Amino acid sequence: MSITRDQAVAMDVDDRLAPLREQFVLPEGVIYLDGNSLGALPKTTASRVQSVIANEWGQDLIASWNSAGWIDLPRRTGDQIARLIGARAGEVVVADSTSVNLFKVLSAAVRITKARDPERTVIVSERSNFPTDLYIAQALAEQYGYHLRLVEKEEIVDAINPQLAVLLLTHVNYRTGAMHDMAALSAKAHAGGALIVWDLAHSAGAVPLHVHADDADFVIGCGYKYLNGGPGAPAFVWAHPRWVDRFQQPLSGWMGHAVPFAFETGYLPASGIARYLCGTPAVIAMAALACGVDSVLAAEPYGGMAALRAKSLALTRLFADRVSTFAAEFDLAIVSPMDDALRGSQVSLACEAGGYAIVQALIARGVIGDFRAGDALQSADILRFGFTPLYTRFVDAWDAAWHLHEVLRSGIWRDACYAERHAVT
Amino acid sequence: MSITRDQAVAMDVDDRLAPLREQFVLPEGVIYLDGNSLGALPKTTASRVQSVIANEWGQDLIASWNSAGWIDLPRRTGDQIARLIGARAGEVVVADSTSVNLFKVLSAAVRITKARDPERTVIVSERSNFPTDLYIAQALAEQYGYHLRLVEKEEIVDAINPQLAVLLLTHVNYRTGAMHDMAALSAKAHAGGALIVWDLAHSAGAVPLHVHADDADFVIGCGYKYLNGGPGAPAFVWAHPRWVDRFQQPLSGWMGHAVPFAFETGYLPASGIARYLCGTPAVIAMAALACGVDSVLAAEPYGGMAALRAKSLALTRLFADRVSTFAAEFDLAIVSPMDDALRGSQVSLACEAGGYAIVQALIARGVIGDFRAGDALQSADILRFGFTPLYTRFVDAWDAAWHLHEVLRSGIWRDACYAERHAVT
Repeated sequence: MSITRDQAVAMDVDDRLAPLREQFVLPEGVIYLDGNSLGALPKTTASRVQSVIANEWGQDLIASWNSAGWIDLPRRTGDQIARLIGARAGEVVVADSTSVNLFKVLSAAVRITKARDPERTVIVSERSNFPTDLYIAQALAEQYGYHLRLVEKEEIVDAINPQLAVLLLTHVNYRTGAMHDMAALSAKAHAGGALIVWDLAHSAGAVPLHVHADDADFVIGCGYKYLNGGPGAPAFVWAHPRWVDRFQQPLSGWMGHAVPFAFETGYLPASGIARYLCGTPAVIAMAALACGVDSVLAAEPYGGMAALRAKSLALTRLFADRVSTFAAEFDLAIVSPMDDALRGSQVSLACEAGGYAIVQALIARGVIGDFRAGDALQSADILRFGFTPLYTRFVDAWDAAWHLHEVLRSGIWRDACYAERHAVT
Repeated sequence: MSITRDQAVAMDVDDRLAPLREQFVLPEGVIYLDGNSLGALPKTTASRVQSVIANEWGQDLIASWNSAGWIDLPRRTGDQIARLIGARAGEVVVADSTSVNLFKVLSAAVRITKARDPERTVIVSERSNFPTDLYIAQALAEQYGYHLRLVEKEEIVDAINPQLAVLLLTHVNYRTGAMHDMAALSAKAHAGGALIVWDLAHSAGAVPLHVHADDADFVIGCGYKYLNGGPGAPAFVWAHPRWVDRFQQPLSGWMGHAVPFAFETGYLPASGIARYLCGTPAVIAMAALACGVDSVLAAEPYGGMAALRAKSLALTRLFADRVSTFAAEFDLAIVSPMDDALRGSQVSLACEAGGYAIVQALIARGVIGDFRAGDALQSADILRFGFTPLYTRFVDAWDAAWHLHEVLRSGIWRDACYAERHAVT
């Protein structure tokens, strides 16, 4: 089944979420399908950041730590994010980067398992997980004398064995957009005696999340993708209440202290998620992130994450349906799962060659996706197209597929293949 | 010796650095003496950040990682800071917070000493060091089976013994403004077989620094004090070339990988200081920091850090001289060293009671200093007055002392003492 452009336009007319797009600055003539890498700019961000800089910093200076509530930003923005991931107020803080937060929660998870079951010394993750997660896990495993074992997606369940201490998974895969079943895998990990850590980098703001109902142990997530927090925005962290006060995480900076402004000599971790803070909050960056999270929360009157999810699935299905009409002819394969329950908010296409040139040709036409080169383990090149339901229209999905077809038909990308293969590093 | 207000005004007229003040937004009627806690706002910051948000993010979106050089910000801003601390281009990166960077370098220092001399298992720091440094060191010592020993300033040299692995010192003390001799203590630590880590939080941008000439092993520093980078600005880190490629630091995120965009499964640390990066750079915050560092580098045509240092010493001396004319009468003691070689860029006053009320009364008069309560170890309350030579005038120092005298003479603070003692936590 494939629809006409007029039908796509009609879907936009009928779309109750359409007004949410008005929240964003989007460049003229651009179809932006890379919000899974860097979310678009909310219109409120510039003036909010300007006010933080000019008024709170410039005029009120040091007093703003209290008068403007700077000191509470990690908790306040964390409370906003909690509404998007099924956590409760007071359970999430914003701090540091995703990588640093993974180090914190993985350290805590390892310490918990070490204390209760020292025979379990294996951390399992997916070979196709985002590399920074694997790098952090690898160094941490070495430090604790653990072993990091990387498996394929279909091997995960079998890897839950009596040696497993922690299962570290990214909920939606960055390359393929394939989504795990958080409830099922959390239950299996727990039944097998292990803890589970979920990276929500490609999920938060894109798909409904229920960290309590799905019984995660720890989650971390990214502020600059579907949360629209700006380039390099701070990340977030949640620990299940059953673990949050067990063990301190190793980055024991003053903001995680029980009484940071008592300037005590000895470290006493705060109770609750505040102990996952470390250094002084990045105020300007957090102000931008708060605007980004607000842009997602603005969907609440329209049905919130469930409504966004329905639109996201319709967008990715429309795009994939269109692409499927010509994919085979050009040796393209849709690698994102077409089962709605297994797909995040992106569509990834695999091609044997020419992927970089195709993406460049699309960019020249104003269609912004991105390219992830294949390697020895993941041989195919990947073209990624992210569909942020807050600001992507159905006609954008239709037009993007049309442009892709045009690029492929032009053959222009074939000439670039040889050069590309020897230029991209 | 004490001067008249007219003489202070004349010193400003003669001050070759006076035009540098024009770089800053400073609120009307305020004498800002808290730049040691949060530097003032450079006039360039708002428009620079606005351009990053509106143009680079809003219009160019994901392309800006390359086209706007976002990906190089940690190194570029690091190169700027290198000029202020006596490091070479390519040796400094901006990343994360001071606390997180301390965790990185202290981990590296511990690993180096563990490999070359496993009998050395003591980390020594000052009991009066800034607490976050002690907290990070405490957790790290526990993790490695080391012992964190806290000593008084005069005990440091005797603590350099065959058990010492790492000496961790903050160059300028946050409470007293007392400054260590970096060259002498680094030499003593090395002669004793130990490594030395310097925290430059209260030094960078305030006093001349020579990390090579003074033979530091690792340094970290803060972006939001004398570097004027904005609230919670990213921090910086330097490792001596003799150590930088020895051992990886434990926060092995993708930005510290040798080839981050190859998305390899295994971690291979970058050579050089880039391996001290971890997550995605905080672009907006780094843009603000770059403006702050530029505001300090703007002193280069006027003699740079040496000229700023001369002015800073003159400012703190003027203020201390004025205060010394009435301090005894009100049981105030100047606790910052009056020997120029031993004083950073602040003047701290100790008082037995009423400190909080005094600072509040000064703030009501537009003189912004700050208050650090005493505790069991450091019994006196401290009033801190930071003198950032970039934007503080001699007449400001004179007027601040005059206002302090007026507040003390009014006696208003005495009434507040009892309430304060029972309210401040």
